[in-house]
Order: sequence, then structure tokens, then C-alpha cells
Amino acid sequence: MGEDSLHGYRGRLREALEGAGASIGDILKVESNGKEYEDSLMPRLESADDWHLVLKLRTGYNVGVTYDTGTRITRMGQAEKPDFRPPPLPETRKGLPRVSIISTGGTIASRVDYVTGGVHAAISSRDLLSIVPELADIAAVDADILYSTFSENIDAEHWSGIALNVAEKINDGAQGVVITHGTDTMGYSSAALSFALRNLPVPVIFVGSQRSSDRPSSDAATNLVGVVTTAAYAPFAEVVLGMHETTSDTSIVFHRGTKARKLHTSARYAFQSVNAEPLARFVDGAVEMLAKEYRRRGEGELELMNGFERKVAVLKFHPGFDPSAIDWHVDDGYRGLVLEGTGLGHVSTGLYGSVERAVKEGVAVCMSAQCIWGRLNMDVYVTGRELQEFGVVPLGDMLTETALVKLKWALFNSDDTEGALELMKRNIAGEYSDRILYTGRFG
Amino acid sequence: MGEDSLHGYRGRLREALEGAGASIGDILKVESNGKEYEDSLMPRLESADDWHLVLKLRTGYNVGVTYDTGTRITRMGQAEKPDFRPPPLPETRKGLPRVSIISTGGTIASRVDYVTGGVHAAISSRDLLSIVPELADIAAVDADILYSTFSENIDAEHWSGIALNVAEKINDGAQGVVITHGTDTMGYSSAALSFALRNLPVPVIFVGSQRSSDRPSSDAATNLVGVVTTAAYAPFAEVVLGMHETTSDTSIVFHRGTKARKLHTSARYAFQSVNAEPLARFVDGAVEMLAKEYRRRGEGELELMNGFERKVAVLKFHPGFDPSAIDWHVDDGYRGLVLEGTGLGHVSTGLYGSVERAVKEGVAVCMSAQCIWGRLNMDVYVTGRELQEFGVVPLGDMLTETALVKLKWALFNSDDTEGALELMKRNIAGEYSDRILYTGRFG
Repeated sequence: MGEDSLHGYRGRLREALEGAGASIGDILKVESNGKEYEDSLMPRLESADDWHLVLKLRTGYNVGVTYDTGTRITRMGQAEKPDFRPPPLPETRKGLPRVSIISTGGTIASRVDYVTGGVHAAISSRDLLSIVPELADIAAVDADILYSTFSENIDAEHWSGIALNVAEKINDGAQGVVITHGTDTMGYSSAALSFALRNLPVPVIFVGSQRSSDRPSSDAATNLVGVVTTAAYAPFAEVVLGMHETTSDTSIVFHRGTKARKLHTSARYAFQSVNAEPLARFVDGAVEMLAKEYRRRGEGELELMNGFERKVAVLKFHPGFDPSAIDWHVDDGYRGLVLEGTGLGHVSTGLYGSVERAVKEGVAVCMSAQCIWGRLNMDVYVTGRELQEFGVVPLGDMLTETALVKLKWALFNSDDTEGALELMKRNIAGEYSDRILYTGRFG
Repeated sequence: MGEDSLHGYRGRLREALEGAGASIGDILKVESNGKEYEDSLMPRLESADDWHLVLKLRTGYNVGVTYDTGTRITRMGQAEKPDFRPPPLPETRKGLPRVSIISTGGTIASRVDYVTGGVHAAISSRDLLSIVPELADIAAVDADILYSTFSENIDAEHWSGIALNVAEKINDGAQGVVITHGTDTMGYSSAALSFALRNLPVPVIFVGSQRSSDRPSSDAATNLVGVVTTAAYAPFAEVVLGMHETTSDTSIVFHRGTKARKLHTSARYAFQSVNAEPLARFVDGAVEMLAKEYRRRGEGELELMNGFERKVAVLKFHPGFDPSAIDWHVDDGYRGLVLEGTGLGHVSTGLYGSVERAVKEGVAVCMSAQCIWGRLNMDVYVTGRELQEFGVVPLGDMLTETALVKLKWALFNSDDTEGALELMKRNIAGEYSDRILYTGRFG
């Protein structure tokens, strides 16, 4: 917490707190939007917004109170210094399935900061159970802090580390694994583990939250209860991503790790299955399978293939795209490129020379769809046929994000480019769909 | 047509035609899927699929007949050599509004090839009226062939040319303009004209088709009738993109040029308005306005701003994104970069140095959302705030595709980077929405 007696508070809110003579830990009376609180002031994350102050309620929960021009703050006295030692661990009931939680950071882990007083994302099992005590009735939960980072900083090294950690938990007897993760790149990471964990015997579930827990609309607790129950009891053994299904708190939906894409910057149901139906749903306290075919628990022994090639990039084609950008990647030693093409899998003829050269120099060049929905078909127009003649491999209905991850994985796990491209064509972790679902629409 | 008596036919279909002794122009009896045709064989595009043969029916329309193992082909004799001269122009009724059609190529123009015998996309007004004769009852149509290209080859030079051509038509008295365009990059082009045509007095409507007209499910004729009627009679004066609203032929929906994105590789309703509602709908022969506020016909005099800076690129951020890719663009003299970031507008901290340097060297760096739906908010997390401190400009709910086009336009039409960034922040052609619509979902 450093020396700052108003840690994490900024701007006009900080000025108002200073004006009231308030410090972290003081009891404040706060009148805001017709509500009145009299509770102790908690520190905030450095990364938090500047229009909420956080109070620790007597229930042990924290609440984020909106600060605006009508808010009045009065210092009522000094509370006991907040006790940042975690509460004692609830006694776990015997016979419950064991679920391991691996924390990598992100919004879902940020609530804990107000409890522990730390300013970095962190969830230990004690923290978790003090925030969501009902987890102790669902499963024997253990939790590790593996990373503590915003997910835009997660890369292939983290994927390898997470996969290794999951494998250790499973080999150690976990009947399900939950990974808390920032939502920004959670779809990339869920794809990575889908390829890295072969012959999976239990569910591995990524979970995040879209609203930080200092907001009343936070989805963190609902998501955690849903995914821990599912990890403990669901019949499937796949890597999935579990988040709110709608705006309401009533159901969590599980998307296959290779088919999940973040499609909204802030909605709680930002993730959707693309070109596929979701695998399962958690509703009314139980897991409902939505897919007819899925990998079942307990089949086979886990095999870890957690290496990823570093020199792979996505190039999003657009009008005026510069062919020298492809040349630069080839000259820089790139081993794989995913071209995100237009329509059924096209780029301008101006790129042909550079694409052909890239393939000749041994770069694995694949095509994905910037349309997102639907399937490539590079046989319809002459453009697509010519690109295939150069050696560009069309990726059907695979998401660009999954394509990047898979190409990194395939290049690491093959002797040469040809071997990697053969892997790219095979359906390894549900990344290709037999049929495309596109029944609904935004709007 | 060259020397090939089976022009455009390939593979097993070609072998079957050769086996029947058939040439282009011959009368064939074709039995396929329980149907029987006795009509003359038409040439095909070089870029066409290899499982349809095209017959010219006595009605003047062409039909694509599926060729599979059960299809029987018998040569019945030689027809008159197909007359590739266009039919006489139907007499235009007096007093109809004048609508100019500008053809740039794409699937919607490909039907004409069977009529003219040409193998390149082309629509003249005679061709058009011979394919969709009902257009002559709707408006006084004139049509120019401006370009004849697949839309993945359309770039800023074409945008300038199309905008100039539209301006000439409007100044010459057109009461509406229709632009036929390949669907791959139609959303980029519709955004480009939205910025290039200031003070627009009439509707300017992009239209394409998703199914080539040798398929029974072609949407070309329905789309053309809908957009020509709308161009002639609709009350709005904006640049829009008109395509099928659903899988059925009953309605065409008009998306604002800056808000339209191709979201499916092959569906007829592939285009959707993103973070906005569509402007209008054509149903039951009439135009229905959906937006409450819109620019009305006849207001002001057209101003043409059709220049676009060439050195602007989109960089789609992803895990493992290489900061030297940003450096390369700066060193290569790029004047603008659109970073397509994760979540609310983030990239990894590993890119900070290169982003900061790009801004210092005078490059206009903007942020858009790879989530597609929703709005950026670079004030919530420390990542976003730091990027803004470097000088990165967040683009709210603007589409990445529109952001690329607008940055090219803003840099061309400003004295310096600061001026361009000021233009980027202003809502010029509906590229920013006040509120975000996200009520439906795929799947």
C-alpha cells in the first residue's frame, strides 16, 4: 500500500476525501443517490476508475459507491485499521470433489484487493472463500496465484505455464480445474490450452468477469459459483470458457475453447461461440449439456504438448494493404502467417508476389476470415484458387484468434512447415465445425 | 471468348460436355435432380464453380443447373449462335426519377456475362434492363461501367474515382445513385464515400450480391429492384449499403455506410449495422425509414472531398504481437496506424515503447476494438490511460474498417497530424453512435 493514505483515489474524488480529512480505514458517512453508508474506507487499485469509493460493509463484502456532484462525505472517526490478514478457511466438507483454481489476473481477481489491501490482482484459496463462501459447500477448493497480470500481456509463455500448472493439478487428483483470466485475451488462452492439453480427463474452465467487483453489476461471484460447480460435477472433459449467457445472472454458458470469441467490449455476455453451439449451460444450480457429442470425463491419460512457436503473426488484410509488410515478416524470420482475408478468403492481387515468396521461403501461410461467421471457400473465385496454388492453406470456419494459436502450436510440434500445415488441416480440438450455425443476429 | 468451345467449363462437368459432343450455343437436353431442360448452353466465367452448367431459357433468363453423378446431358442440335448483342433498350416512361447505376464489378455483375458472352464483369444500362426489365418501370436508369474488378482489389484510388463519378451523376441531375460492388470490401468503400461526399443531396446506395446468378438462390435481381426503387424515391440523402435483411427475398435493409460490416462469408444477409440500427428497409415495394434522425433529400450542395492518404495501416493486436512491426511502419514513412486492440482498447505493455515512438515521430495512432461490438473506454484500466498519455486516440464504437478509411481521409484533408486527429474525434458521417445497440445474438 505504500505511504499513500488515500491509495488508488484520484481526481475530484480524492480532493473530496482530502477535504473531509479522510484516510484509508476511517469510518465515513457517505450520502450518494439517496443512499447512506457508514462504513470504513478501503484502498483502491491503481488501475481503478476515479468515480467510485469503496467501503467495507459489516457483512465483510465491499461496496463501490458512485461519487458525483451530489455525494456528501463526512469523516465519522477512525475505525480499527483494516485487518488485511485473510479470515480463517471454512472447514471443507468431506467427500466433495476437488477443484483447483489457478489465478492469472484480470478483473475477476480485482475484488480481492480490497479485502487483502493489496493493489495487485491476486486470489488465494482463503481470499476466494472469504469472498464467495458458498464455494466451500460445492467443492474442496484449492487455489494458486500463478500470474497476476492484465490479460493483454498474456502470451505463449503464459499459455505454456498455465498448461503445465493445470497438468500438475490434474495429475495430483483435481477433478476439475478453473482458471481465472482477464477477458481481453481469454479466447486466445482457451484455444491454447485446448491444443496443449491432449487426452484431457476432466473439465478445464476459463472464467473472467466483465464488470469490476466494485460495481453492483459485477458478474464475478455468479461466474465463480457456476464454473466451480461445473468443474466439479459436469460430465464433459474439455477446455471451455464460462461466462454469463445473457444480461441476467441466471445462467452461465460454456463455449468450447477453440470457438469462443469476445464480441463485445463491456457486456457481461461478451463471449459467444462462433460457428458452433455452446457446449453446456449452468442454470438453477445444475449443468445442462447443449452439445450432443462431447469428450467425457475420465477417458485416457493427460498428455501435455505445451510448446508454441514465437514467430507467428496475424496480418489483417484491408484495402491498401502493403505487400512489403509480408516481406518484412519473412525477412525477420517469421515461420507462420495467418492472413485474415476478405469474404471467402481473398487478398488483393498486389500481394500475390509477396505471398508466393513467403511460401517459397518456407513460411506456413494460412487464410482465415475477417467476416468472423461462415466458412472460407477458396474454390469459388479465381482469387482463392490462385492463392491455394501458391500454397496458402484455407482454414474453413476456424476463428482467426484460434488460427494464430494453432499455427504457433503446430509449428512447435512439427518437424517442418509441411508437417505443421498437415496439423492445421486436421480437426484437433473442435476448431473446425461440420456445420455452421448462424440463426440469430445482432441488432 | 477466345477459341474454347466450352469456355469456362472445367473438371468432370467439362468431360461430360465433351462426351456429349456439346459446344457453347448448342441445344442440350439436361436431366438433373428430376428436372429436365432443353435449352442452349451458355459460356461461363473463368472464375465460376465447376458444378453448374448454364442454360439460356426462352424467357431470356439464364439458369444454373447443378451437375452431379445423376445428371444426363444429350446434345439435341445446334442452336442459332447466341446473339451477344444486347436487346433493344425498353422505352422509359416519362416523368420517372433518374437513377444512375455505377458498376465496379463483383458477383452482382457476373450474371451479365452469360448474356453478353463476355467473361469480365460488366453492367451497361442495356445489359441491366435485359436482366431485370422491371427496372424500366421504376426509374429512368442509366448505367456506367466504371471498374470491373473483384472488390478485394479495390483501394483508395478506386474510392476517389467512384466518388468523383457519383458527384458527376448528381451534378448532372441524378435523383439517386446505385453502385454495384463486390461484397468483400463493400463496407470499406461505403465508409469511404460517406466521408468523401459532403452535403449529399440524394441517396447513394452500394449494392452487391452474395450468390452468383448462376445459382437459383441468387439475390442479385431482388437487391437491384430494392435499391433502385430506394434510390429513386427514399426520403434520405446518405451513403448506405443495401442487401438482403434475412435469408428470404422479402426485404432489403439499408445500413449506414460507416456502420456496415460484412459478418458472414456467404449468407445473403451477411452485412449488418454494428453498434447502430439500420437506416431504412425496402419491403412490399416501399421504403420504410427505421432511423428517426437522418439527412433528408435536397439539403445543400454536394461538396467533394475524395482524397485519401496512402500510408495508413491496420495492425490487429494479438498475443505475441511484435513491437518491431510498429517500428517498421514508422520507418517506412507511415502517417497513420489503427491499432485494433483487445477489450476496452488495450495492447500489451511490450508495445508501449514503439507506440510512444510512433506518436513522437508524428504518426497518427488510433485505437479500435477487435471485439467489434461495444465501445472503447480507455479510462478504466491503467493500460488504456497510459496509451492515451502517449497520444493514442480511442475511437469509441467506430468500426476498425471505418477507422482505416477515415484516418486515410482525415490525413489527406488536414495540414498535420494534430488536425487529422481532431477530425478523427468528430462525428462526421455517423461513424460514432450515441448509444450502442446489442439486443440480439448469434447462435
